[in-house]
Amino acid sequence: MADIAILGFGTVGGGVTEVIERAQGCVPGSSGCGGPRVKYILDIRDFPGSPWADRIVRDINVILEDPDVKVVCETMGGKEPAFSFTKAALERGKSVCTSNKELVDAFGPELTQVAKAHGCSYLFEASVGGGIPLLRTLRDSCRHEDITSVVGILNGTCNYILTKMDREGMDFADALRQAQENGFAERNPDADVKGPDTARKLAILASLISGRRVRYEQVPCQGITEVSVADLKAAKARGRAIKLLGICQRDPRTGDLSVMTAPCLVPADNPLYGVNDVFNGVLVHGGCVDDLMFYGRGAGRMPTASAVVADVLECLKNAGHTVENGLPEPDNTITPVPFTSGLPGGIELL
Amino acid sequence: MADIAILGFGTVGGGVTEVIERAQGCVPGSSGCGGPRVKYILDIRDFPGSPWADRIVRDINVILEDPDVKVVCETMGGKEPAFSFTKAALERGKSVCTSNKELVDAFGPELTQVAKAHGCSYLFEASVGGGIPLLRTLRDSCRHEDITSVVGILNGTCNYILTKMDREGMDFADALRQAQENGFAERNPDADVKGPDTARKLAILASLISGRRVRYEQVPCQGITEVSVADLKAAKARGRAIKLLGICQRDPRTGDLSVMTAPCLVPADNPLYGVNDVFNGVLVHGGCVDDLMFYGRGAGRMPTASAVVADVLECLKNAGHTVENGLPEPDNTITPVPFTSGLPGGIELL
Repeated sequence: MADIAILGFGTVGGGVTEVIERAQGCVPGSSGCGGPRVKYILDIRDFPGSPWADRIVRDINVILEDPDVKVVCETMGGKEPAFSFTKAALERGKSVCTSNKELVDAFGPELTQVAKAHGCSYLFEASVGGGIPLLRTLRDSCRHEDITSVVGILNGTCNYILTKMDREGMDFADALRQAQENGFAERNPDADVKGPDTARKLAILASLISGRRVRYEQVPCQGITEVSVADLKAAKARGRAIKLLGICQRDPRTGDLSVMTAPCLVPADNPLYGVNDVFNGVLVHGGCVDDLMFYGRGAGRMPTASAVVADVLECLKNAGHTVENGLPEPDNTITPVPFTSGLPGGIELL
Repeated sequence: MADIAILGFGTVGGGVTEVIERAQGCVPGSSGCGGPRVKYILDIRDFPGSPWADRIVRDINVILEDPDVKVVCETMGGKEPAFSFTKAALERGKSVCTSNKELVDAFGPELTQVAKAHGCSYLFEASVGGGIPLLRTLRDSCRHEDITSVVGILNGTCNYILTKMDREGMDFADALRQAQENGFAERNPDADVKGPDTARKLAILASLISGRRVRYEQVPCQGITEVSVADLKAAKARGRAIKLLGICQRDPRTGDLSVMTAPCLVPADNPLYGVNDVFNGVLVHGGCVDDLMFYGRGAGRMPTASAVVADVLECLKNAGHTVENGLPEPDNTITPVPFTSGLPGGIELL
């Protein structure tokens, strides 16, 4: 048993407790997963009646000062106090696993340095593609691949809305309202429908495949608010689907990198064509392996929490040393260049 | 630099030399991949003019007795001498990475025990799904998931033939001939079109997700030789595609396991529906993460070699200890039960 702490008992944080509970039995045959145990949950709220009420603490120092806590799950979101808490935990040699893409985008390289300096790890599988095992796979299975492009449907809310509009001829506003009613969109949906959520995830992916730092602010970003039912019909007549894509293309000779978030036309023979509803899909092109596509739930309590827990188990397995997370040094930056030679995978701009 | 040896300089073995050469530069940002160097290639043939001619050896003992060789790639195929060579290498503490599904199916658990006893690893990512990073992902990212089903398009030859028949109205014999002309089918195509190749891969997957030993001979197996253009047309009229699937279903309460290889009807909302041509796709359902799908080239020189090299890099990174490969103990067997509650993912038997 290894003690862990969860920062933020919201949707994902609550999911982490549940995934860990279910995992106590462990899948037979996958040994080595000595079960983690949730010792503390940091939250400012009360949770009377919750079976986890006795784990709630209000003071981060309780967690920071307990040497038994080996791994901290940061599921608070936002920059502060998530950044300060993460940094403090890493400085005490506690690994941090997060679903917080905003923090990874803004300070991931810096936090990775802190982790390295203190012999622990900073992992963020859940920050991109929700439950899809994507970042670990790029890191562990594709490290020798010269990856030349990553194209992703990275926002489940937008994909749900576009699927509704396409299948039911519903206009954007109605589809958004239905997404909100079904809990697939926030009350303020801008981060999803205007593209920044996709751009953040793409910036992380671009940094990982290039080994150079790309920030969210460097990603030209257009959302789906202007997409009409007429656009979808016209696309369909040409055998195309409209998807909000994050696209990163890398020239293997020069190292030039191009990045973009925009609604695009996806041809029927592209494996992203059939990725519908709230699902995400990420198409990766490697020099040896050719096309790979990873598909799954890009959001939601249990899938996202499952990705956090996969990171927790990796930290526990590698206790005492730093798991390489693939992020570049903080000052190893790159300025993306415009797309000049067309988009990968037969994709066109809408 | 770490010395490696390749057993068998055929399609995959030759690809391994090429992938390793290309990987010397390494993807920027993915550190830790100190390049492996091919010291020996075991083959009974001569390769005059090949840039690798000076590495060719005829005697396995040259490799076994060289303490510099840390990892051996077994890309010979078949049971013997692959089994004896693998066992001898493991007994000398050399890790073995293989694409040989026949050997993994027949003796994987036994060879895994030998590896454990000698502090080295036996890995076989390339044996299922070709270049798709599947086995490592199930092991490292899904170890805490209660996986209840795996459904795979696992044979690229069959998928190519079915796609041709569907799109061009070509009958089975003609499509097979074209596959053979294009190098996608062997002269003796039985292992592909009659299903055993799929059944072997499914048996490996079933063993990994259940932690119990399932052998190829236990998988009821039907191929695609009886599928007609009329079947494909009738399926399409119902919004279905016909795919040769390997299916494994696991009851999480009882642990009961059902396995099968058969041509099936796949509904349009199943992510396997759009997996065409020589591509493979594997749909995995986990208790927390829900549906995941992995897509890529299931065969071919470079994709398969890429998977072998991913294993080589993992062995080098974990030099001196055994990488858990997820296979059960040799005598931890299970007798599969028939499917009783329908197939997963809306799939029906043809």
